[in-house]
Amino acid sequence: MNLAILFGGASYEHEISIVSAITLKDKLSSLNLEFIFLDQDHTFYYIDPSKMDAKTFSQGTYKKSPVLSLKQGGFSQKSFMGSKSLNFDKVLNLIHGADGEDATIASLFEFFNIAYIGPRKDASVMSFDKFMTKAYAYSCSVDTVSYELLSGQRESKIDFPFIIKPTRLGSSIGVSIVKSPEELDYALDVAYEFDNRLLIEPFIQGVKEYNVAGTMTNDGLKMSIIEEPQKEEFLDFDKKYLDFSRSEQVNEADISDDLRQDLYEAFTKIYNPIFEGALIRCDFFVVEGKVLLNEINPIPGSMGNYLFEDFTGLIKNISLPPKKEIRVKYTYLHTIRSAKGKA
Amino acid sequence: MNLAILFGGASYEHEISIVSAITLKDKLSSLNLEFIFLDQDHTFYYIDPSKMDAKTFSQGTYKKSPVLSLKQGGFSQKSFMGSKSLNFDKVLNLIHGADGEDATIASLFEFFNIAYIGPRKDASVMSFDKFMTKAYAYSCSVDTVSYELLSGQRESKIDFPFIIKPTRLGSSIGVSIVKSPEELDYALDVAYEFDNRLLIEPFIQGVKEYNVAGTMTNDGLKMSIIEEPQKEEFLDFDKKYLDFSRSEQVNEADISDDLRQDLYEAFTKIYNPIFEGALIRCDFFVVEGKVLLNEINPIPGSMGNYLFEDFTGLIKNISLPPKKEIRVKYTYLHTIRSAKGKA
Repeated sequence: MNLAILFGGASYEHEISIVSAITLKDKLSSLNLEFIFLDQDHTFYYIDPSKMDAKTFSQGTYKKSPVLSLKQGGFSQKSFMGSKSLNFDKVLNLIHGADGEDATIASLFEFFNIAYIGPRKDASVMSFDKFMTKAYAYSCSVDTVSYELLSGQRESKIDFPFIIKPTRLGSSIGVSIVKSPEELDYALDVAYEFDNRLLIEPFIQGVKEYNVAGTMTNDGLKMSIIEEPQKEEFLDFDKKYLDFSRSEQVNEADISDDLRQDLYEAFTKIYNPIFEGALIRCDFFVVEGKVLLNEINPIPGSMGNYLFEDFTGLIKNISLPPKKEIRVKYTYLHTIRSAKGKA
Repeated sequence: MNLAILFGGASYEHEISIVSAITLKDKLSSLNLEFIFLDQDHTFYYIDPSKMDAKTFSQGTYKKSPVLSLKQGGFSQKSFMGSKSLNFDKVLNLIHGADGEDATIASLFEFFNIAYIGPRKDASVMSFDKFMTKAYAYSCSVDTVSYELLSGQRESKIDFPFIIKPTRLGSSIGVSIVKSPEELDYALDVAYEFDNRLLIEPFIQGVKEYNVAGTMTNDGLKMSIIEEPQKEEFLDFDKKYLDFSRSEQVNEADISDDLRQDLYEAFTKIYNPIFEGALIRCDFFVVEGKVLLNEINPIPGSMGNYLFEDFTGLIKNISLPPKKEIRVKYTYLHTIRSAKGKA
């Protein structure tokens, strides 16, 4: 399979996307890989695999690479002899955060009819917005942590300590734990800097967290082992950043069969049907034995490769949702024209 | 102001978008208008204003028009002398349904940095999905009709008669009123043909309906008069279709000052802040004196021109949300490389 990996993007997570792509270059080395970099000005570049290191991007030498343009069915590269098409079977959307996870890339690829692994438009917007995620979980009969939505207000009904999160950013950006009233103003300022809608959730001391990844394959839904991530009070950006370069398989969490089954059940409910085409990771909390959805990562760091035994086989086997064809017959325009006595 | 009107799209509402565009050609005749047609195969065409009639599209002669390509900042048209840019200040997104209202066009225009009137990505996905609309209304403290969500099931807990709606289509496509158990199977088949998630709502006989349109302008939020639409049992596709060619101003609904104030308050709550940049129409029900949101039309038929006294002035004065600039500094890649002893 020829797989094109798309990374970068005009996103706060631009740099960790580069780290994810470099990690997958090694992890998926048995596939024919092409690399497409989207810079912060929305220009696509074809990156030679030998140039896939941090320096190419941090020093800006990627700008010497060939520029790619979107066209129906793929990407083309201008040359002196006209233009040639980039050759691939599908694209893996590995742009974390804005562009990749906010429906932009999904829209471009659907518009230009390009096969891709990644969340579709509605799945993107829904999981990019933490409030919409809660509404979606509710519709799937999966519980979440209780919450309050602030849009402009500077007070909360929830008791201290609580967590403040911008509704539409990933990777813990703008997130604060607020332990007392004195800390509130600063935390609100930081969060409102990134979003005009904030979510407040009670901070649950010592909550157990479990991660499960999975995807729909041609042989049905495949789920990863369950990981209990190591954590500080919560993952800050630096720590989470290093997380994107993981490639060693991790050990399965030591939990009861009942809890394992509950976690897999919750994942299955969340995945179906809107995430088909994407490999996602769900982060769950367990409070008093009850599984609560914390977050959906529709493009997890390095695609959660470390949670699967045969990651390459899984990527090759992901099933993409069928494209809905809408054909216009101009029946109504004909009807109106006939009614007016015109042919 | 040079305004480009974008219409068509790979949408079940392709034809009514053409009707909307023809209607606005007359209504906005004092502006400098350009017309961009998106055909069902996702090719953009520049349509000469003199060709803006039903025949151009129903007979397929639009294919002789110049093809336009997206580029950073706008559209370009190939010519023998290279390529030239289409000249406009902003685009009015007039594609109803898929493409226009499902975040595709919003994504393309944001990606290519094109100023446009129309719903943004999150506003699009949210109002395109009737279940997400209910969740959003809840977050804005606006009530809606009670409901049940079906995804695959063929039974409802709601008493007959009820309405079945696909969650993600406009213009009453796939919608049925089910009065008795015998009618259920057929109605479910029709609705599941269009979507895998359905909404069931109690059918409220003789419910009062009121429509309000509005937009954020440079002088604050401007709202239209309140209309009580004439209706059959409910608007079917044919009837709604003819609705898209309306251009005569309508009379204001004869309602109490209190109700008027409640409707305007509900509209204001729904509009802010995610619909900035769009001119939307909200359709409300009033049940036992209580205002319930029925539907948000983020690109209403012929832009609801018939609800405003000075529609042209309004279109000229719509304020567009500021673009959020994300600049990448490569701090983290530098940090990692320093940690590894590299420059």
